[in-house]
Amino acid sequence: MIRVVVDAMGGDYAPREIVRGAVEGARGRNIEVVLVGSREAVEGELSKCDLERARINTCWAEEIVGMEEDPVRAIRRKPNSSIAVGIKLVRSSQASAFVSGGSTGAVAAAALLILGKKKGISRPALGIVLTSPSGPVLFLDVGANSDCKPQHLVQFAEMGNVYMKRIFNISEPRIGLLSNGEEETKGNKLVRATHQLLAESGLNFLGNVEGQDLPRGKADVVVTDGFTGNVVIKLGEGLGGIFAELSKRAVGNNPIFREVEERILNYTALYTDQGGALLLGVKGNVIITHGKSDAGAMKQAIRLAEQMVKQRVAEAIGT
Amino acid sequence: MIRVVVDAMGGDYAPREIVRGAVEGARGRNIEVVLVGSREAVEGELSKCDLERARINTCWAEEIVGMEEDPVRAIRRKPNSSIAVGIKLVRSSQASAFVSGGSTGAVAAAALLILGKKKGISRPALGIVLTSPSGPVLFLDVGANSDCKPQHLVQFAEMGNVYMKRIFNISEPRIGLLSNGEEETKGNKLVRATHQLLAESGLNFLGNVEGQDLPRGKADVVVTDGFTGNVVIKLGEGLGGIFAELSKRAVGNNPIFREVEERILNYTALYTDQGGALLLGVKGNVIITHGKSDAGAMKQAIRLAEQMVKQRVAEAIGT
Repeated sequence: MIRVVVDAMGGDYAPREIVRGAVEGARGRNIEVVLVGSREAVEGELSKCDLERARINTCWAEEIVGMEEDPVRAIRRKPNSSIAVGIKLVRSSQASAFVSGGSTGAVAAAALLILGKKKGISRPALGIVLTSPSGPVLFLDVGANSDCKPQHLVQFAEMGNVYMKRIFNISEPRIGLLSNGEEETKGNKLVRATHQLLAESGLNFLGNVEGQDLPRGKADVVVTDGFTGNVVIKLGEGLGGIFAELSKRAVGNNPIFREVEERILNYTALYTDQGGALLLGVKGNVIITHGKSDAGAMKQAIRLAEQMVKQRVAEAIGT
Repeated sequence: MIRVVVDAMGGDYAPREIVRGAVEGARGRNIEVVLVGSREAVEGELSKCDLERARINTCWAEEIVGMEEDPVRAIRRKPNSSIAVGIKLVRSSQASAFVSGGSTGAVAAAALLILGKKKGISRPALGIVLTSPSGPVLFLDVGANSDCKPQHLVQFAEMGNVYMKRIFNISEPRIGLLSNGEEETKGNKLVRATHQLLAESGLNFLGNVEGQDLPRGKADVVVTDGFTGNVVIKLGEGLGGIFAELSKRAVGNNPIFREVEERILNYTALYTDQGGALLLGVKGNVIITHGKSDAGAMKQAIRLAEQMVKQRVAEAIGT
């Protein structure tokens, strides 16, 4: 049976929404969800839940890593934090996936320090699945590696290729390289060197894609360095919020507005649709949900974790 | 009297919309607009215009630089192109500003080759003024320099500082550095080194700003390298188009949609509001309008050119 560990203490709405989402995610599935966190908080929330047909287990961890803490230091100093304890359950093969809405840096640090990197992967990357008119787009790295070398971007492409094949059943994912122009001569030094390597990689490399191509879904996987990727993701979220406000102002109290807002925010609110960001390249399936995730988003994340385990995503990455 | 040169052949709607916009831009102002381009095209369009209270002059240039041509080669091989001839009028002090909706690369190449850089500026930059709830934001570089050094970004900040002081009358423009986190330890190598230099620059440096802060107007000037800046601008434009479509689908035929669309597109359609992108750091005032500019946008660009000349923006930049 698949066992998914959920960090009950991570996220703006923890523990309430996390525990509720965990129960909903487990209900009726052939999986067990292990809630890791403070005994008092988790038991308090669980007592309010209907546990019928939901296999829930618990594991107590009384420390919490704060959002402002230095990630590596926090993981080293707080071995009994919900993040460290949860990741250790994956490390010891007691569970197959870890889901947390806590500090992205701390989860990534714990995964690197405790699980380690897959062979053949020098830099694990954070990927996000974007919505587009032509289907899902896996965009990575969105923040794990601020400075990258060309071979890192090639590894991101290879990991993205595995993910889109296994999770979305795309036989030959189209790989795009984010650049400031379509021609192979365009780009900064990193992008121009990466272009050459991707062209020789054997992947289904489309070439460079530009900013406007990303949300249009021109490629199934788009790779970039973690600095650019992070700026892009945050800009998209910021613009989504502003456009929703602008629509509201234009539409006023017309009930139609709710529909507009929902469509716009669904497009950028990465925490509702796809379950969370993926830390690819470590020895385990790790999902980092948006801090604003509610029970519905957590349920989605648990379903995704189940799918990643079934499709053996972490096993298939690397050499 | 201020003389503004306009490239009659540049942009998707040239020459018709350009000539019309030039006439509207000149009307009633104490300026002369010099239309540069093919005699047949310009005279044909001018004959349809009402020239009352509009000082229009012409200068024939029978070559055109195509959008797909290599910029530097095109400027060298086509000395009689509208771009090269127009820039030469500024070089010889027959005019004080140049406005074109042609190839950004070709206009930048002509400005560099013919006008040259201002003293103290190693890399001229392309800036765009974004709309935000808290006022205009000058964002640069959006594409002139794919690879930058820290001192280049500091020069961009200094040029942006001059522009926002002189054009928007902001006494101490707040300078932000685009990064993947607010803390000074965040960023790629370029950003971390630039942060130190900006902190010591004497400018009103706010620190790092993130993707979501840019459209919110947290800073008056936001600097980045031309690779990231280009990706950001194109993503914004792409998302604007998608969000407008999503709203349309939600709102259907309700006339309210036009208002929503207009507000969203005005936010990202940089060619309507602010007149165009600015090439800062060359010896002259150069405005590159969006290829989709219509007569209204050209009129705006000419008004902006007049203001840049009056406020002596090009003179004030550099040492």
